[in-house]
Amino acid sequence: MFDKNRLILVTNDDGITSKGIKALIEVAQHYGTVAVVAPNSPQSAMGHAITISQPLRLQKVDIFDGVDIAYACSGTPVDCVKLAIDKVLPSKPSLCLSGVNHGSNIATNVIYSGTMSAAMEAAMSHIPAIGFSLMCYSSNADMDTAKVVAHKIIRQVLQNGMAQCNLLNVNIPDVAASALKGIKICRQAKAYWKENYSERTDPIGRKYYWLSGDFINYDTVADNDLHAVNNNYVAVVPVQHDLTAYKDMQRLNEQWTLDV
Amino acid sequence: MFDKNRLILVTNDDGITSKGIKALIEVAQHYGTVAVVAPNSPQSAMGHAITISQPLRLQKVDIFDGVDIAYACSGTPVDCVKLAIDKVLPSKPSLCLSGVNHGSNIATNVIYSGTMSAAMEAAMSHIPAIGFSLMCYSSNADMDTAKVVAHKIIRQVLQNGMAQCNLLNVNIPDVAASALKGIKICRQAKAYWKENYSERTDPIGRKYYWLSGDFINYDTVADNDLHAVNNNYVAVVPVQHDLTAYKDMQRLNEQWTLDV
Repeated sequence: MFDKNRLILVTNDDGITSKGIKALIEVAQHYGTVAVVAPNSPQSAMGHAITISQPLRLQKVDIFDGVDIAYACSGTPVDCVKLAIDKVLPSKPSLCLSGVNHGSNIATNVIYSGTMSAAMEAAMSHIPAIGFSLMCYSSNADMDTAKVVAHKIIRQVLQNGMAQCNLLNVNIPDVAASALKGIKICRQAKAYWKENYSERTDPIGRKYYWLSGDFINYDTVADNDLHAVNNNYVAVVPVQHDLTAYKDMQRLNEQWTLDV
Repeated sequence: MFDKNRLILVTNDDGITSKGIKALIEVAQHYGTVAVVAPNSPQSAMGHAITISQPLRLQKVDIFDGVDIAYACSGTPVDCVKLAIDKVLPSKPSLCLSGVNHGSNIATNVIYSGTMSAAMEAAMSHIPAIGFSLMCYSSNADMDTAKVVAHKIIRQVLQNGMAQCNLLNVNIPDVAASALKGIKICRQAKAYWKENYSERTDPIGRKYYWLSGDFINYDTVADNDLHAVNNNYVAVVPVQHDLTAYKDMQRLNEQWTLDV
């Protein structure tokens, strides 16, 4: 299924030297010409942040076999996609792949995720995009299963079509590929983080706070991504960037008075 | 409609010294006990970024008449809401107000917006939340119309009910209140930013890039927020944090093969 005219942009949020992006690049090279623009430092949990008050830098790197266009960027994951589209790539890419993230982007984590925000930025620019996340936070995570899954998902997209929303959130259980039960098309689980900041004191006696918390799953129906990965399925959630709560529009129109 | 037991958290992304947050605090004080946790520096376009690799600081400030709980925070707008809930507030707030933002958060800007991401963080923690944005980017913007609108919207929420999604994106035309035609309940307009980075050279000859771009509206039906504000209506979009593209779930289930 290789097509050299198929330009594939690969990015991530863990940084250009992470194991996950190397794995994803190796998979992507089976399907087209790969270009890489990824952060020069870890950018996890940067959400859809963009850099508006600082200049951005691009540094050409030569660390991926067979990849001619590869740049480390000083900005956020979304900055990487924007700069790639505008300044780096010779043409609009056919596909954007983000990840493989070292850690889960299940449930509402999609909203905090730099990996998924980069992919969403591509989708908003009408580029089909897929974010891949492995349910293992180790920087030395074994990417073998992730590579098998990435091949499978990319082939599905190329052969059987992309979601109309142009964006998929793929979460991969951290098990051997032979232990996977299949793919489940899921909805985002209802869950949130309950903060529990660690309150500490610095060497000169001033307080500081370090983020910590518990992930609270309050979803009770099984068709969600968290349930899928917990049962050794690959979870695929089609993700939209239209955040309108359409049902609420009708409710507000009926209940509110709309004069000022 | 004042109730001292109604605890209202006010935050923003332009920073705690901005004119917009002062205006919103003055409105909020008519409805309950106001507490403020807001960034100590401008945090526009930070999206849903959270700080995970750095400590956070809180500094008590005394710059708002009649507000006992007010802190400047070193983090992002979402950090402010998280820290407020976990460490600052005496109890869970009844309402979170974010803004008044100096500038538009129309259409897909909701995704980049620190103002709206702060409000979304509250909504994700089951706190009703409203983000207010004035269609004027000046730090010295006239907030009189925004205050009239904020009063109106807060009263609607208290009297006639909140959206089930718990989050409203309110964009306010920069005109005299008397020129407003009313409120429109809208959907998010289909639009995106087309990047056009300014490429420059620093004093030692290295290239850098500065974000610039054009806002491309490709929405052709009038029931969207951009159309509303352009016609002097206050645009209210109910915003959800479930990003699942439900229609695509069915499509993918029909078109894909799901074995691995």
